[in-house]
Amino acid sequence: MANSKFEYVKSFEQPDFLLPNTWIVVRVDGRGFTKLCAKYNLEKPNDKRALDLMNAAARVVVTELPDITVAYGVSDEYSFVFHKSCTLFERRASKIVSTVVSTFTANYVHLWSTYFTNTPLSPPLPSFDGRAVCYPTVMNLRDYMSWRQVDCHINNLYNTTFWTLIKLGGLDNREAEKLLAASPLPPLTHMQGTVSGDKNEILFSQFKINYNNEPEMYKKGSVVFRDYELVEPGTHNAAEAADALAEPEQQSKTQAEKDKKKRSKARVVIEHLDIIKDDFWDRRPWLLSNKPGKTPKEP
Amino acid sequence: MANSKFEYVKSFEQPDFLLPNTWIVVRVDGRGFTKLCAKYNLEKPNDKRALDLMNAAARVVVTELPDITVAYGVSDEYSFVFHKSCTLFERRASKIVSTVVSTFTANYVHLWSTYFTNTPLSPPLPSFDGRAVCYPTVMNLRDYMSWRQVDCHINNLYNTTFWTLIKLGGLDNREAEKLLAASPLPPLTHMQGTVSGDKNEILFSQFKINYNNEPEMYKKGSVVFRDYELVEPGTHNAAEAADALAEPEQQSKTQAEKDKKKRSKARVVIEHLDIIKDDFWDRRPWLLSNKPGKTPKEP
Amino acid sequence: MANSKFEYVKSFEQPDFLLPNTWIVVRVDGRGFTKLCAKYNLEKPNDKRALDLMNAAARVVVTELPDITVAYGVSDEYSFVFHKSCTLFERRASKIVSTVVSTFTANYVHLWSTYFTNTPLSPPLPSFDGRAVCYPTVMNLRDYMSWRQVDCHINNLYNTTFWTLIKLGGLDNREAEKLLAASPLPPLTHMQGTVSGDKNEILFSQFKINYNNEPEMYKKGSVVFRDYELVEPGTHNAAEAADALAEPEQQSKTQAEKDKKKRSKARVVIEHLDIIKDDFWDRRPWLLSNKPGKTPKEP
Amino acid sequence: MANSKFEYVKSFEQPDFLLPNTWIVVRVDGRGFTKLCAKYNLEKPNDKRALDLMNAAARVVVTELPDITVAYGVSDEYSFVFHKSCTLFERRASKIVSTVVSTFTANYVHLWSTYFTNTPLSPPLPSFDGRAVCYPTVMNLRDYMSWRQVDCHINNLYNTTFWTLIKLGGLDNREAEKLLAASPLPPLTHMQGTVSGDKNEILFSQFKINYNNEPEMYKKGSVVFRDYELVEPGTHNAAEAADALAEPEQQSKTQAEKDKKKRSKARVVIEHLDIIKDDFWDRRPWLLSNKPGKTPKEP
Repeated sequence: MANSKFEYVKSFEQPDFLLPNTWIVVRVDGRGFTKLCAKYNLEKPNDKRALDLMNAAARVVVTELPDITVAYGVSDEYSFVFHKSCTLFERRASKIVSTVVSTFTANYVHLWSTYFTNTPLSPPLPSFDGRAVCYPTVMNLRDYMSWRQVDCHINNLYNTTFWTLIKLGGLDNREAEKLLAASPLPPLTHMQGTVSGDKNEILFSQFKINYNNEPEMYKKGSVVFRDYELVEPGTHNAAEAADALAEPEQQSKTQAEKDKKKRSKARVVIEHLDIIKDDFWDRRPWLLSNKPGKTPKEP
Repeated sequence: MANSKFEYVKSFEQPDFLLPNTWIVVRVDGRGFTKLCAKYNLEKPNDKRALDLMNAAARVVVTELPDITVAYGVSDEYSFVFHKSCTLFERRASKIVSTVVSTFTANYVHLWSTYFTNTPLSPPLPSFDGRAVCYPTVMNLRDYMSWRQVDCHINNLYNTTFWTLIKLGGLDNREAEKLLAASPLPPLTHMQGTVSGDKNEILFSQFKINYNNEPEMYKKGSVVFRDYELVEPGTHNAAEAADALAEPEQQSKTQAEKDKKKRSKARVVIEHLDIIKDDFWDRRPWLLSNKPGKTPKEP
Repeated sequence: MANSKFEYVKSFEQPDFLLPNTWIVVRVDGRGFTKLCAKYNLEKPNDKRALDLMNAAARVVVTELPDITVAYGVSDEYSFVFHKSCTLFERRASKIVSTVVSTFTANYVHLWSTYFTNTPLSPPLPSFDGRAVCYPTVMNLRDYMSWRQVDCHINNLYNTTFWTLIKLGGLDNREAEKLLAASPLPPLTHMQGTVSGDKNEILFSQFKINYNNEPEMYKKGSVVFRDYELVEPGTHNAAEAADALAEPEQQSKTQAEKDKKKRSKARVVIEHLDIIKDDFWDRRPWLLSNKPGKTPKEP
Repeated sequence: MANSKFEYVKSFEQPDFLLPNTWIVVRVDGRGFTKLCAKYNLEKPNDKRALDLMNAAARVVVTELPDITVAYGVSDEYSFVFHKSCTLFERRASKIVSTVVSTFTANYVHLWSTYFTNTPLSPPLPSFDGRAVCYPTVMNLRDYMSWRQVDCHINNLYNTTFWTLIKLGGLDNREAEKLLAASPLPPLTHMQGTVSGDKNEILFSQFKINYNNEPEMYKKGSVVFRDYELVEPGTHNAAEAADALAEPEQQSKTQAEKDKKKRSKARVVIEHLDIIKDDFWDRRPWLLSNKPGKTPKEP
């Protein structure tokens, strides 16, 4: 409703549209989760309940915001990818970021008791901040995703070794830190093949722990996406197809309706896969094309 | 930790610092609350439980973020004011907005069952979006606050009359709408004195309802702030003092520590006051000066 | 040098980096050129001297800023394209825009007397404003260039007919406008083949003017670029190669030096070509690859 | 005119409105003026012709853009202040910056031959870059202006001593630099009173040069503004009045016309005054109020 001489203040709001035809990544990060880990006595180096809760909250975000094509989570952070043709909220950064953060937070808090059955939440409650970054090409986007997964790998290998030295090796924090500082990470371009190097050595030779047998969720993080039938490898170059799109496609209404229906029927899954190699993307062309795939047959 | 050839993607994040020496208002808005009202069967035109829950969540936000000097809420929205000298998160818009939205959401969801004792939440959960706007002067800031409170007044008077026509007058929605469309709001510069005009007339002449007797929370909205001893009216020009500040003051560490302690001890209160007139601001100089006031004597 | 208590004001400058890995187009527009046309009595619908002067100024800009890969001008505007890998001024928008505008203006004013030999400049002097826009893909960039060239075509056909009706047909401005309003432009996807339609009809049937015989500069505008040997058509997909680049390439210093030398030796040419069709881009791969081509043999 | 399927590219242009109710400072800086000084053999430490040319170009900018209330220049830079109520180009940063830079450049190049009568310009021509910064309060704005004038003072004292040591003292560049590095600048809060210290000492004791007798233009830089009758000192607090303005005033059309006329009649002067002390601002209230003063009586 029209409102008085004060209304001029509306004009101070600055527009913050994200550049069209770019991939929008919204990353959500836990605020002060080191304290939270201590407060609720989370397991080290990984607390399965905490990660399952992050994944459950992320799955709701992906389900409720169909413009999100894929999400990737590790530790207390989650990255949500909006397709480059997305026009949600006219691509206003603050609307997109705050909606993702709020939906994530609401579900994290609401689902807490499902995963932490005997540990009620108490103030200050867990909360998250968020930011949006635009990536112009599929290669930039995939490099972002790879960056997060390499980070997951590096941190998890470090943390696994660190906590093994403490829990099984009887070292204290400073001794473990010192020992690891002297053992640089092997040169890794990405996570292919057996990961060799000093940390694996320590785990295996001293503690008979084979890092490769650690749970996939800890080693690779979690990917969340709508699940359709995989296509044959080598039949599709998803990146090229996506980069060729110049602008939001003018779909017919019927087609848009059909896509929407298909999307809402699709199962949103949580997997722990290598997202650095081409295979993940090429076999799931819908992630980059934004066109729903074939519904998988019931088993 | 250092991380591979993918790390270049970090450089795509754009800085979003808010202009220094300006008042930052973060407004949080309920997403799709019309649906939410229907789903949980909220009372019309005002549901006390819903407003109390909004206020409770806002109180936590103000308590946990001491850079917030005052907040104002009405309906499903809340505006949080950060002092112009605030340097939280280097004044990065996305960090500030997402932190406020996330803290608000977490507490809204967590406190839901306290206010809606027999109405459990179910997906999709309530969520909020947010935005930040900068105001250069105290007058701009106060005009913003006045804008929201005038809006509160206009909407509440309309809604009260609308729902009275339906509940007590037996009209249906369309009839009530039509009747009110023909009764324009009286010229209001602000909320001073008795609010006269057609809507009040309708309420009083047809239903013997005196709008002035409606609950203050519905008529004025809610203000949240740290409570200190009021100063004598006329002894202080808060706006002038605040506008004269050119930059974040260089406080001594001792002083900063003292202020912090005082702030953390202060009671964060929820009141329903006229924030348009000078009186509210002049008697609470700490709201604009960012210097804690005197702790009120125990009653 | 260090400087006093006032230096804090530097922190109020806001960063304005343009998104990495996107094509930067800086468009320069004449300010108030309608007045300028009247003041210096420029010829209608096209003044060759004025266009030659625009082109001469643009050629200097392209020569002095080697990050510009191609430029396109029509009427009183010029668009300069910086390669997406460009890191000039850390991609700060205001630095890039102001440098282009200033260099263009300086040369426009300085070269004025070369093209307008008997018409000295007098205050207020011609000036230009500018803006920067980012395009994520080659297709977006080419669509931008096509947009400007189609605009050139539409306007020139209109203006040519308009001024013919006045100069040769004896109509006054209003009569000519009215007549043309009744003759909508033929459906044009782009400028292929003979342009048919009412305006051409008018020109030909009434005045025996064949629009296709008008000067290329008027019909197509002007393209400015470094000239190397053309490659065979069909041997190169320039767009695909350019889109595949994810980040500023890490060239060896020797290679960078070689490229720089080659670029500085290249002739900067002004041509009047169709830049909408693939042919222009495919035969000049250096425009999109940012790798200098082969120096053409001397004739 | 409507234009094809390519027109969507327009939507990629990002808005860049400067925050309302803030002072806009556009600073223009010479690009590569060290080279330019060498090329045209400018006098050291100050070349009167070069400074006069800067001032002449700035005077035109202030004259042609009445939204500029005051400008300050030193060396190869000029700062133009737009009143906080300015709505020129809807406050779009790139339009404002590019217009100032272009107008300045055009006049600099055009007026060159007036000041450098025997030194024709040759490519590469002088050019300038520019940026816009917003200041919320008069104190911030004045601190910005003070920052530039203190800079002027520090640099000029240094340069004067440096070049005296070389020209009169027979030192070479390195020897002069070394000697001055050992002589730190005296603690200066601002330029009040006699400037004492080592550099003045060197000038006076070794060369009998009294720095205070150096030309005002070199010591203080140049201020450009519309000239009206000075008001009595102490009768006006310009800063307070200006800060109290909350939004662009709603002037009556008649008043706006009158102001415009007065402004266009006012003489734009170039002075060399202390702009750090209150006096300069308090005696010229029109600089901050944006209301034209009284036309001075003819002498």
